[in-house]
Amino acid sequence: MKEIMSTKNPLIKEWKKLHKKKERQQQQRYIIEGFHLVEEAVQAKQKIEALVFNQRGQKEWGPWLQKQPAELLVFVSDDVLHQLSELPTAQGILAIVAMPQVSELPSTHGGWLLLDNVQDPGNVGTMIRTADAAGLAGVILGEGTADIYNTKVLRSMQGSNYHLPIIRYPLVEVMKIFAENKVPVFGTALDDRALPFTQQVSVKSYGLLLGNEGSGVAAELLEKTTANLYIPMKGQAESLNVAIAAGILMYHFELLK
Amino acid sequence: MKEIMSTKNPLIKEWKKLHKKKERQQQQRYIIEGFHLVEEAVQAKQKIEALVFNQRGQKEWGPWLQKQPAELLVFVSDDVLHQLSELPTAQGILAIVAMPQVSELPSTHGGWLLLDNVQDPGNVGTMIRTADAAGLAGVILGEGTADIYNTKVLRSMQGSNYHLPIIRYPLVEVMKIFAENKVPVFGTALDDRALPFTQQVSVKSYGLLLGNEGSGVAAELLEKTTANLYIPMKGQAESLNVAIAAGILMYHFELLK
Repeated sequence: MKEIMSTKNPLIKEWKKLHKKKERQQQQRYIIEGFHLVEEAVQAKQKIEALVFNQRGQKEWGPWLQKQPAELLVFVSDDVLHQLSELPTAQGILAIVAMPQVSELPSTHGGWLLLDNVQDPGNVGTMIRTADAAGLAGVILGEGTADIYNTKVLRSMQGSNYHLPIIRYPLVEVMKIFAENKVPVFGTALDDRALPFTQQVSVKSYGLLLGNEGSGVAAELLEKTTANLYIPMKGQAESLNVAIAAGILMYHFELLK
Repeated sequence: MKEIMSTKNPLIKEWKKLHKKKERQQQQRYIIEGFHLVEEAVQAKQKIEALVFNQRGQKEWGPWLQKQPAELLVFVSDDVLHQLSELPTAQGILAIVAMPQVSELPSTHGGWLLLDNVQDPGNVGTMIRTADAAGLAGVILGEGTADIYNTKVLRSMQGSNYHLPIIRYPLVEVMKIFAENKVPVFGTALDDRALPFTQQVSVKSYGLLLGNEGSGVAAELLEKTTANLYIPMKGQAESLNVAIAAGILMYHFELLK
């Protein structure tokens, strides 16, 4: 077990940089906070580089920590923990985790959620959590979609990123692969040619494409879909939140099976 | 048209207090920010007490502002506008609006969303927006549910609070009234006695009860429901976000009709 009591320690300085997306990309690692997420990462056999905790963390999760490899344990001062934490109230434990090296082309079996330029971290996290709950095969993040190693996304995913593959891949390429495999991709749009989603019959494998909070799915992608769907609105609201729309559609597709 | 250039003006000091829930209750008024929401409030014939704008607001929405009653217009300095705004980038226009005086018992006709202790402002706002889109009759806020005049709730509702009645009422009383009118109330729960929601047949009028982000619907309410429903989870996620669950259930009930 290591002990680091100074916020000026070079390792702490290096880890603290992980609050920035650019640094996470460069270092290929990220921080998860709180016992629940740390436990999920360990259970999912992610490559943990360090388990960092303060006195409070040791008190609350001492027995669990003792069962982890000693070389991963890093006991720190409250100051150090707060430097590494992005939460208003740090929970006494966090982990430094290596990013998984996923770069293969996605399978096209089962249901896949495709996200085009979804920018709000809470939306992206909630959609991944819902995809997990609904039983989708995986989630593909297209250009402009929020980084999943952002603290807010990690928190709203509640560990679902360890339950199903989350792959960053250009959506134009993804749509070509789906087409080659004869797997339909359904876009979401509010234009005249879109169909109410309830008219779409059951399919075992599919892509479901959702887009940006303000502007929706890019026109160049919508042109290449098998069909575009919309969610009927009986009331006066002009639109649905994108995560809500995704939830309704994913459950519709999965429960139809 | 009034002009207020000093942040020390007594009216500005009074309005600034509206950032706090307690003061909103006392003054029975609230602030809405941005042209979209202000326009929604005007269209919905809400009681506007003041339309507050700075130079930028005048430049962008001058023609619209000229059509409004002159006695409502308040031109302010940038400093004053920023004092009243809770957004990181103020949009140049906001309104002071009187709270509607709704205290009657709710009707039980149509679909009603009942919220028990839903605390996250974003969740409450999104649920009200979805209720509007899905075509529900109204939303009833029980004890502990976030104040809808909170800036975050107002923003995520996107004006839906002007499209359907939002009533604060004790849920125990609401459930008595629904029972007296022989209108079923469906709870949401993860216990053994709950049914998958897809088994629930169509009803014209109903209450749909959702609960706290952490602890769900209070046990004392769940005991009094017609039936309790759950959303099947095929994946490994332990739960759904409450706004997502509400969206799936509301669309299920409304599309069944």
